[in-house]
Amino acid sequence: MSLLPPQITRTIEEFQKLPGIGPKSAERLVFHLLRSQRANPEALGRALLDLKSELRFCVECQMVTTKERCALCEDTARDRSIILVVEEPLEVVAFEKTAFKGLYHVLHGVLSPIDGMGPEQLKIRELIERAKSAPGTIREIIIATDPDVEGEATATYLSQQLKQFVPSITRLAHGLPMGADIEFADQVTLREALNGRRSL
Amino acid sequence: MSLLPPQITRTIEEFQKLPGIGPKSAERLVFHLLRSQRANPEALGRALLDLKSELRFCVECQMVTTKERCALCEDTARDRSIILVVEEPLEVVAFEKTAFKGLYHVLHGVLSPIDGMGPEQLKIRELIERAKSAPGTIREIIIATDPDVEGEATATYLSQQLKQFVPSITRLAHGLPMGADIEFADQVTLREALNGRRSL
Repeated sequence: MSLLPPQITRTIEEFQKLPGIGPKSAERLVFHLLRSQRANPEALGRALLDLKSELRFCVECQMVTTKERCALCEDTARDRSIILVVEEPLEVVAFEKTAFKGLYHVLHGVLSPIDGMGPEQLKIRELIERAKSAPGTIREIIIATDPDVEGEATATYLSQQLKQFVPSITRLAHGLPMGADIEFADQVTLREALNGRRSL
Repeated sequence: MSLLPPQITRTIEEFQKLPGIGPKSAERLVFHLLRSQRANPEALGRALLDLKSELRFCVECQMVTTKERCALCEDTARDRSIILVVEEPLEVVAFEKTAFKGLYHVLHGVLSPIDGMGPEQLKIRELIERAKSAPGTIREIIIATDPDVEGEATATYLSQQLKQFVPSITRLAHGLPMGADIEFADQVTLREALNGRRSL
């Protein structure tokens, strides 16, 4: 016999699939939603149903956007000769808090054979196309994958693929502690890492 | 200029309204949902939209249910002479893991003048009606509000209102540390608190 109505149980189960949310937290979130004036299940529910609608990747940098090209790639004030390569869209958000004024390229993951992530699963072909298609316009590609095993392997692979097209391929300085997650780095650490980048 | 598409920003904002979820956690949850095989935004979204549909309070104990009476009140094997009064539906779930075999009454809150919670905002009238309506059938009401200021005040108020109708009004033993939250107590502590209950 289930003590709680099925729609409550189902919502608790769905919340539990999220990282860092266990059974107790999921229960608390659901009962908070049932009771709260501020949070409401319909608003969150509708937002989630719309989440993927009209969502696409920018044709140039692969950032999530609703248009053909994202706002950053459309911005004529950006330095188009430098591309910062990141794993995830949230890392673009993080770097935008630093003084970086170039363009980005979002890989949407890292090379990880154990997880079935090869070059075809990432936006690597698109990055090589970008480097190839406009010879001489890109003077530097900064590879800002996480400083862990997969991130380092991805950086090495990208460097080999790109060095024939771009004069300078750099990697973020190891101001970042090894094994850390770029998304959580503070702005000062990110700025230091940008300033101390080294040639691959 | 917003870096992220509006449907992502909106979902992040709605997640942030939940307790314990800050801006960074909300971002992580949303991008996890966009990417994950296991969790998906549509399933959670639909669950949330259905959450309140057909949800009602049991006419007898005020537990959340989809029927007129909840499964516990329908269960003829329960001891109908003893009623355990709790603040929230999740506390019924917690007590069901102990050996308690009576019925419940869910107040849906506690008396808290500062939050505008008076007797009319809680299911107190319904509890008094229950005690009054079948004279002699209820031999004990156990008041299991949280052992904090509001919970103690609510227990005292209920005791005064109910004592003319019910031979024994008891309170959970203070095996529970003061200021704690019943929902998080372990089963042994809850069982001890039940066993050591004292007359008000």
